[in-house]
Formats: sequence, C-alpha cells, structure tokens
Amino acid sequence: MQRREKTTPPLIPKVAATRISRYLRYLEELQARGATTTSSRELGAALGVTAAQVRKDLGYFGQFGYPGLGYKISNLIPEIQRILGTDRSWNVALVGIGNLGTALFRYKGFAAHGFRIVCLFDSNPRLIGRSVEGLVVHPVQAVGELVRSKKIELAILSVPQTAAQDVAQSLVEAGIKGIFNFAPVLLSLPEDVAYVSIDLAVELEQLAFLVCHRERELAKVKSPFE
Amino acid sequence: MQRREKTTPPLIPKVAATRISRYLRYLEELQARGATTTSSRELGAALGVTAAQVRKDLGYFGQFGYPGLGYKISNLIPEIQRILGTDRSWNVALVGIGNLGTALFRYKGFAAHGFRIVCLFDSNPRLIGRSVEGLVVHPVQAVGELVRSKKIELAILSVPQTAAQDVAQSLVEAGIKGIFNFAPVLLSLPEDVAYVSIDLAVELEQLAFLVCHRERELAKVKSPFE
Repeated sequence: MQRREKTTPPLIPKVAATRISRYLRYLEELQARGATTTSSRELGAALGVTAAQVRKDLGYFGQFGYPGLGYKISNLIPEIQRILGTDRSWNVALVGIGNLGTALFRYKGFAAHGFRIVCLFDSNPRLIGRSVEGLVVHPVQAVGELVRSKKIELAILSVPQTAAQDVAQSLVEAGIKGIFNFAPVLLSLPEDVAYVSIDLAVELEQLAFLVCHRERELAKVKSPFE
Repeated sequence: MQRREKTTPPLIPKVAATRISRYLRYLEELQARGATTTSSRELGAALGVTAAQVRKDLGYFGQFGYPGLGYKISNLIPEIQRILGTDRSWNVALVGIGNLGTALFRYKGFAAHGFRIVCLFDSNPRLIGRSVEGLVVHPVQAVGELVRSKKIELAILSVPQTAAQDVAQSLVEAGIKGIFNFAPVLLSLPEDVAYVSIDLAVELEQLAFLVCHRERELAKVKSPFE
C-alpha cells in the first residue's frame, strides 16, 4: 500500500472533474434565477476558463449541447449529475463527532446534493450512545457491522491525526468505497478505495503563500533591476 | 471584476505550491519521529510523486539540500516556511460564527501553523456581543475599523451563500489581502486579493465521481468488448 494524494482517475484530469462540479453549481444558480439555456462561453466566464475548456471538459463524457445553440440547462444538470454519480443518493458514515464532525453533520450542502449521513461513530465513551439530531453515536468498533447493514459506501473522517489511519483501515475492511478525510495526515489506502482529503491548515498556508507571492511579484514590478 | 478560481501565481503551478505544504507536513512528522535528514526520494514516496518532482517543486524557490546527501530536516523546514510565508504569524478574522465557523475557530491546526484568529464577526444580533472562548463577536459592519486596528491580513469566510459576496466586498474594502472562503459560491474579487475556496459538497461530489469512475473502469476491464 502506498500513501496517496487525491486519486486521479485515468485519462480525466482531476481539475476537469472539479470544474464539472463547479459547472453544476453554476447551472443550478442559473436555473434558480430562471434561466433555461446557457453557453460554453457563459459557463467558462463564470469559472474563469475559456469556452474551449468547457467544451473539452464536458467532451470527456460525451456530446452535450448544440453548436451555436448552447446547452439546455434542464438537460445539462442531470447529465452532469450522472457523470458525477450524484443522480442517485449515497449513504455516508461520519466518523469523529468533535467540533468539526458536528459541523459537517449539520452542513446542509451534503443532503442537498444526495449525500445522506446515516450513521455516526466516535471512540469517546462520553459520546457513544448519545443522540445527535436523531442519530445515535456508535462505537468505532461497530463500523464493520453497520457499514454493511446500512449499505454505507462513503465515509467522512474527522478524527484526530493519530487515530485516522486505524479508523481508515477499519472502514476499508468494512467495505467502504470512498473516504473524505479531514485529518491532517496522509492515509495509506488500497488502490480500490477512492480518497479525497482536505487539510485545513494546508489550505490556509496556500492562501498565505498566494498573498506573499503576490507581494513579491508587485515588488518586482516596482524595482525591475532587483 | 471577474469571478475567479483559486488564483495561481505566475510561473509556479498551484499543485506545486500545494505539494510544498504537504512536504512541510511530512517533514514535521519525520522530525517528530526523531529523523534529522531526508531525501527527495523519501519525500516523494510519502506523497506519491517522483524524487525528480520533489526536486523540481523545491527548485522553483532555490537550491536546497546536497546531491547524494539529501536534506537536513532542521534546515528545510524553515526554508519551506519562508516560501509559504508561515515563518511569521498572520492575524486572521473569522466571519460567520455558525456551526462551521465555530468549528473552524476551535480548529487547533491553524494556530499551530502561525494563523491567529484575532477577531470574530457575525450578522446575527443574538451572537453579537457574546464571547466565544474569550473573543467577542463583532457586527459585520465593524469589519472596516477592526481589520485596520487589529492589523488583520486574512479572513475566513463561513457565512451563508447569499451573504458571502457582500461580506467579501466589505473585507476587500477594509484592506484584507486574502480570503479563505467556505461559502458555496464563486466570489467576485479584485485581482490583488488572494482567494482560496473550499466547497464541501463539491469535494464530496468528487469522491462520488472517483468511486463511480473506478467502478466503470473495473467494469471495462471485465468486459473489454462493451
């Protein structure tokens, strides 16, 4: 087993898949505003990419829209949902009911996109058996049994760094297909388990880097002979 | 003003900057375990990239380490912190003290990497004036004054989608240099404000996509004449 970054599926670049999600968000926004059609140009402008890029991204998955006519929003939304796998609902386990875990449990955006958190786990004896908004917190040891009986395919991992690998291992053994990891650690997972990881401090560091880098770029412009 | 994705600084690919953060995390892990030196090969293996990729990523910022000898961890850590801009502390405002905002405020990983949340803002009259772990919640209208007086450079935005653009605008006018956005919306920001955005539902969709895509790939292998 090898430590891995977010897994890129063969042939389709990860950035394209991320943009596909963002096209969907923007299409939903347009639909909510009453629009019925859109174009590669409009979608691209919204995300800061070219119309050609939009056509290329969607082109990985088939032929949508009509040249010169654009896309019918009510057709393109379900097509993209089918591509992403969100044309159906997913049962999700949430492991780690601390501050972040609780906030993730209450996050409305997941259910709105077909992700149902159906089972809560924690290792803290003070939490086990308690009910959080109608769901009982189970001990981590029950992962194997409950993942199978509740047909859970995805897990959100919001446990401390030190526990993450062991819990991930239990989830893999229970047959989970994908892990959404918030623990700031690189997990070792078998190749057939999908993996998306967010390290919040890494993301904030990236922001600091962008700020510093911009300042350096501006300084360079001011003193070109530096 | 144009809607933008995470801004990529010129010449250095965003993925390289993200890997730099992850090298740092791994170096800290190695140091905690008592290691004193490492190699491009070891760093690469930990992140699933080649040794050449590690050398190329670090090469954007200068010459570190010695051919055949590798890197001295106690030297490389501060060098990477300097690259990322985390060799100093940053004052951060947190806007939106809901479930997610509160969890982010309590997240230990930010302070551990030099990010100090020094000011809280919300628009909810029931929260304004209340104290959360020693910090008073201020009204969003006070952003301009407090960002200046408290020398705040970065802001974490965990407000509802509908409020995000207006709040971002106030932060920009107050002179904020970078925004870490959790609202599921594309923000319009001026070019000179750095921007990192996490849409939690988009990330979970990406996981579903990876799971579906893997299943499709496996199905293809099974029936090559499909």
